[in-house]
Amino acid sequence: MSSPDAQIFPHATAEAEKTVAKHQAPQDLIFYAGWFCPYVQRTWITLEEKGIPYQYQEVNPHKKEARFLAINPKGLVPAIEYKGKAIYESLILCEFLEDAFPSHTPHVLPQDPVERALARIWIDNINKNFLPANGRLVQSQESEKQQAALEEVYTFLKKFADNIKGPYFLGEEFSLVDIAIAPWIERDWAITQHRGYKRENVGAKWETYAALVEKRPSVVNTLSLREHLIPIYGRYLRDEAQSEGAKAIRAGRPLP
Amino acid sequence: MSSPDAQIFPHATAEAEKTVAKHQAPQDLIFYAGWFCPYVQRTWITLEEKGIPYQYQEVNPHKKEARFLAINPKGLVPAIEYKGKAIYESLILCEFLEDAFPSHTPHVLPQDPVERALARIWIDNINKNFLPANGRLVQSQESEKQQAALEEVYTFLKKFADNIKGPYFLGEEFSLVDIAIAPWIERDWAITQHRGYKRENVGAKWETYAALVEKRPSVVNTLSLREHLIPIYGRYLRDEAQSEGAKAIRAGRPLP
Repeated sequence: MSSPDAQIFPHATAEAEKTVAKHQAPQDLIFYAGWFCPYVQRTWITLEEKGIPYQYQEVNPHKKEARFLAINPKGLVPAIEYKGKAIYESLILCEFLEDAFPSHTPHVLPQDPVERALARIWIDNINKNFLPANGRLVQSQESEKQQAALEEVYTFLKKFADNIKGPYFLGEEFSLVDIAIAPWIERDWAITQHRGYKRENVGAKWETYAALVEKRPSVVNTLSLREHLIPIYGRYLRDEAQSEGAKAIRAGRPLP
Repeated sequence: MSSPDAQIFPHATAEAEKTVAKHQAPQDLIFYAGWFCPYVQRTWITLEEKGIPYQYQEVNPHKKEARFLAINPKGLVPAIEYKGKAIYESLILCEFLEDAFPSHTPHVLPQDPVERALARIWIDNINKNFLPANGRLVQSQESEKQQAALEEVYTFLKKFADNIKGPYFLGEEFSLVDIAIAPWIERDWAITQHRGYKRENVGAKWETYAALVEKRPSVVNTLSLREHLIPIYGRYLRDEAQSEGAKAIRAGRPLP
């Protein structure tokens, strides 16, 4: 029997559906995606930003279809098949897009090596410190644990906001630091409605930044209707979700 | 009062001491290091492999000297100061060395973007799966937990060994995948003597690979005498160490 996670709405909607429709033709690069997944969206935003030709392929990672598993035994999305070889991990895919399409601008990483390293330090920070705290905030059922996680989220975001050069994190250029956090900015209605999170509690600089990031065309064009995300988020908020990420948060293990 | 971790032997010995002696002159790149630290050694191996001019600067990260904190407020080693700017995180520093010194060969990452992504996936795997299990194996005090961690270490290393192309992980070229795991290969005497680990239990392919990696000149030339590592490892084996990594393992949190 398939898990309840397999019962999600089957395809992208709203602006994301239009983007999918534009990327049906066969290409050297196949983008295996789940319309709802924030990790997928990181890679998707990068593809859109750089105007790389790609073929969008919807995969329900919880169904683990044989056709997809043959390409990517881990069965995880996002994944990219490029000239017959499969790779995965959202941010490794974003770096791959920079490496494989050097003439496609804008670059999402600074060209200066020190600035690039500083960007990677912040991206690493988002993964190691923000995402686990945010996951605990969503999945924790006890009020005390939720409060502790909310404090962690605020502490991280305040520090992050202090370091925003403006208007984007690194300055004028929209970068992989913005992309790494954008999907969780866009989905913060869930913790706002259910966990007492408020952007204004982080501060005005964060509010301005978050509003700007969620208006970025590449972000808007990879977003589906909230009404289809609500049942998925409901399973996370009740701590019933069975994704690898949800299981890791529940077990107190590092995110996969 | 300083923590007991501050009482470590103050400088590199053996081959590492000779390497330090060769890198005392001022350079554009200052490498802030702790002779004993496996994360430091990753960056150090990369510097040595690529023949990049650097000035070695010993820092005891547990003492948090004011002079060092002024450059790197996190107080973590390894760190690099390059033309006045400080960056840190061992693998981000290795990527920085590739980016900032493109004419210094050998390259430690493949030039083909897909192969590069596959290398990064394995490096990420080492960080996310091997290091936490290895940390739990070293620090756990109960026999059951040690046994569970030992099984996790074996499971990871068997899978890793299955994917060694030979002689090095990616084939003929020594790469950042080898560098990412080398310091823990070199230090596995601790889990061999105290936790029942045996290279032969992973398999012959792993034994051959581990023996080859620990003979690599850049690895040998960044290694100090075991007698000075023993008291440091003793604190980890008794779960008394106060490094950020030791605290994370103890708390079941992701490694910093």
